[in-house]
Amino acid sequence: MPSRDDFIDATAHLLRRQGYAATGLKEITARSGAPRGSLYFHFPGGKEQLAVAAMERAGEQLRAGIEATVVSCNDVGEALARLIDVMTAGLERSGFEQGCPIATVTLEAATASEGIRSAADQVFNSWLHVLAERLESAGFEPDAARRRATLVLAAIEGALILARAHASTGPLIAVRAELIALHD
Amino acid sequence: MPSRDDFIDATAHLLRRQGYAATGLKEITARSGAPRGSLYFHFPGGKEQLAVAAMERAGEQLRAGIEATVVSCNDVGEALARLIDVMTAGLERSGFEQGCPIATVTLEAATASEGIRSAADQVFNSWLHVLAERLESAGFEPDAARRRATLVLAAIEGALILARAHASTGPLIAVRAELIALHD
Repeated sequence: MPSRDDFIDATAHLLRRQGYAATGLKEITARSGAPRGSLYFHFPGGKEQLAVAAMERAGEQLRAGIEATVVSCNDVGEALARLIDVMTAGLERSGFEQGCPIATVTLEAATASEGIRSAADQVFNSWLHVLAERLESAGFEPDAARRRATLVLAAIEGALILARAHASTGPLIAVRAELIALHD
Repeated sequence: MPSRDDFIDATAHLLRRQGYAATGLKEITARSGAPRGSLYFHFPGGKEQLAVAAMERAGEQLRAGIEATVVSCNDVGEALARLIDVMTAGLERSGFEQGCPIATVTLEAATASEGIRSAADQVFNSWLHVLAERLESAGFEPDAARRRATLVLAAIEGALILARAHASTGPLIAVRAELIALHD
């Protein structure tokens, strides 16, 4: 269904750049290029349903990207460094507009929408799972792997916030160095 | 100026809970209890000016809180753990509504408003400065202290996002354990 996908892609882009509250159905429709009338056919739940679909799609794309990146290195510190390099490049290429596709919406809407909170939770968990598996394969016990994965994901998420405020990749570079040192 | 302060406090509360785009001048005025007519007298720059003032006030309050907390312990790991305990208690007490007062607005509006981006950058820098000073007093070299402070702040910011998505303090507890272990 091309127009359904177009709506989801347009929503994902806008959520990542400006968040949930600032993104209206008019802007989504205009960006999607799809006929306006088909929006409520595909998404009778409106913006909330669209946002959940966009978070699930962006979350799964990024999960696959994280997995491909962290299994590409034998050394776990180097694997995490490569992951940060990928996020850093994306942020820089977009003029510090495109950080995490899930974080903004979570902070804005987790309180007001149980659907959005739950979608965010599932996406973050899918990323934590990939990171924890990689750490287990490097010798971490399951509980320790989960804790370390949480530190790694939290540090990357936080560094993406600091980098947008600073309009520089400095915070990501600092976190990268710290995470490499931690796995030396 | 009581009504000026009331507007700032009301804005700070709403930005922390729901972010920038969802917060309107009507809601700010209603919550402030101040006469509507005085809003543009005190804030001719409207919502953007109010948001910057609210970020500066919340940022300074939290900076003072961070400083008081991290100098209260001789052990740096314990000091960071106490800081996370304070943030965790605030988040839990608010039913997972009140995380970082700066992060949401940064992610939403750093691209669109240079004033907001710059205010966020200054607040984050003031927090990093306090953390880096504490780490230097524990023996870190200045550059290493700044890197570690960035990791600590980023990890706390990220854990606050994950905790709101998960509606649990688990991610903060995991990051707390990792940061303590790092400073053992």
